[in-house]
Amino acid sequence: VGRFNLYHPDTLLLIVDLIGTSVFAVEGALAGMNAGLDVFGLLVLSFVTALGGGTIRDLLIGAVPPNSIRDWRYGTTAFAGGLAVFAFAPVIQRVPGQLMITLDAAGLALFAVAGTAKALEFGMSPLIAVMMGAVTGAGGGTIRDVLLAQIPGVLHSDVYAVAALCGAAVVVAGIEMKAKRGLAMSVGAAVCFLVRMTAVWRHWNLPKAIGH
Amino acid sequence: VGRFNLYHPDTLLLIVDLIGTSVFAVEGALAGMNAGLDVFGLLVLSFVTALGGGTIRDLLIGAVPPNSIRDWRYGTTAFAGGLAVFAFAPVIQRVPGQLMITLDAAGLALFAVAGTAKALEFGMSPLIAVMMGAVTGAGGGTIRDVLLAQIPGVLHSDVYAVAALCGAAVVVAGIEMKAKRGLAMSVGAAVCFLVRMTAVWRHWNLPKAIGH
Amino acid sequence: VGRFNLYHPDTLLLIVDLIGTSVFAVEGALAGMNAGLDVFGLLVLSFVTALGGGTIRDLLIGAVPPNSIRDWRYGTTAFAGGLAVFAFAPVIQRVPGQLMITLDAAGLALFAVAGTAKALEFGMSPLIAVMMGAVTGAGGGTIRDVLLAQIPGVLHSDVYAVAALCGAAVVVAGIEMKAKRGLAMSVGAAVCFLVRMTAVWRHWNLPKAIGH
Repeated sequence: VGRFNLYHPDTLLLIVDLIGTSVFAVEGALAGMNAGLDVFGLLVLSFVTALGGGTIRDLLIGAVPPNSIRDWRYGTTAFAGGLAVFAFAPVIQRVPGQLMITLDAAGLALFAVAGTAKALEFGMSPLIAVMMGAVTGAGGGTIRDVLLAQIPGVLHSDVYAVAALCGAAVVVAGIEMKAKRGLAMSVGAAVCFLVRMTAVWRHWNLPKAIGH
Repeated sequence: VGRFNLYHPDTLLLIVDLIGTSVFAVEGALAGMNAGLDVFGLLVLSFVTALGGGTIRDLLIGAVPPNSIRDWRYGTTAFAGGLAVFAFAPVIQRVPGQLMITLDAAGLALFAVAGTAKALEFGMSPLIAVMMGAVTGAGGGTIRDVLLAQIPGVLHSDVYAVAALCGAAVVVAGIEMKAKRGLAMSVGAAVCFLVRMTAVWRHWNLPKAIGH
Repeated sequence: VGRFNLYHPDTLLLIVDLIGTSVFAVEGALAGMNAGLDVFGLLVLSFVTALGGGTIRDLLIGAVPPNSIRDWRYGTTAFAGGLAVFAFAPVIQRVPGQLMITLDAAGLALFAVAGTAKALEFGMSPLIAVMMGAVTGAGGGTIRDVLLAQIPGVLHSDVYAVAALCGAAVVVAGIEMKAKRGLAMSVGAAVCFLVRMTAVWRHWNLPKAIGH
């Protein structure tokens, strides 16, 4: 409670979080559109893509009801993203791919470090906290692909979840070494963002098993 | 406890709930049969189709263990539906499609309003309570389709989950306006049922995004 | 706490549990390799195949956070199995199929009885406890197949989950009849293992619905 203060860290975090939510929601709805879904399907995919990862994280670490369910602002933001695609698809499809990728990388970075910090708060071990960072960042896209009856892209191509893992590892290492939480999260987010953008720019892919 | 009373509201609700469960279970098992599943697969699909939606709702709102797991009558009813399909498939397949659709619409209506009311009881916001109504009604069929490696039908065709959303919205609006719970639920169920049946009768479909 | 004692029942149970985890993890990673996943995908599939069933069981019975998340040794073991496949796939693929099937049957037996016992401890009814045994044993492979966009094998071929159900039923019956927990679990595991191995040896399949 108290006066609304745009420059308070929590207000800023919430705003950035909602921006990430809307970017992921738009991406989910676009994927649904390309798969021929109707407006209801678009809304489901926007919610699931934006908030599915955090929801799984919350169920696993015991933060029930999950954030996505407890705070109406997340669902509303996700559905707004889905409706925007439904109503203005031709406009949204004209957004440059480069911009979408950059916004997505920013969303991934934010979700990864926020998910890691929350898992640590709930007493998870470092290994699991890092994993929860990746689940928060890449879990929604994974469920989206499962609903579209496809093998999740994150499992076979691109460097995406690994960027989240890098950022999450920085957060865990920083907090273990008694760095300030805000600092650890900022550096972690920067690392995740840079790894992801470099991977896109250099067309990195992860190795596959020898003998395949 | 106390004397069994067929006309007590809770007894009636339980009976109707178990009828809905068995209808959904039969539909799940029939879908499994058409996909070539064995008797174990039929039983899994009957359980998941009938009780998966309510189970997800309960996990999300924090009603753990979920009803489907805590009360043996639900599982038993679902498995009975699956076994009926296994043993008497030729008979069950002769049930007129019109009757199956009507029973399914009744089950959807009941699941939607019951799920909404439970979410409100657990302190969810109106938006989320309406969503939980749709999850309760349409979630089981969604998991069934995922297990059959198909894009869930509810995402791309027909007016199904939206009927659940309409009924759920009536329940939430009614309770917000201090109507009696039983009245709000009855009207909500009627609205859901009518929307669904009209949609089937008139071959309604939801719009897709412009530009697709 | 206290001195490490290799012959203490809990130590033995943990060791056997971790062996089961690593076998399932290797199988998951091999399936991922055959589907063309990268090293991250292999690790996800090893975790999910080995620990997904127990995780779902724990979420359903209210044992949150799930064991797989609370105890770092499970995740580490699963990831080690996945990394082994990534690094030494040609060696691991030379392991005789017969040995893999036997180890897998042992893992299934252990997971099934351990999952059943845990469900009983958490106050589940006999029917649900038996179901939780099958979920623990066969749930991970089911999620693995869903992630690979395939109909889960356990639903249409082979006698696999039913072996878990047999072992689980023995555990429940034994404990209901006041047998010692350790005895009931040992006999249950033996029954599950024997049913599974006989099924493989005799090429058993479950019946499908008449009229299919």
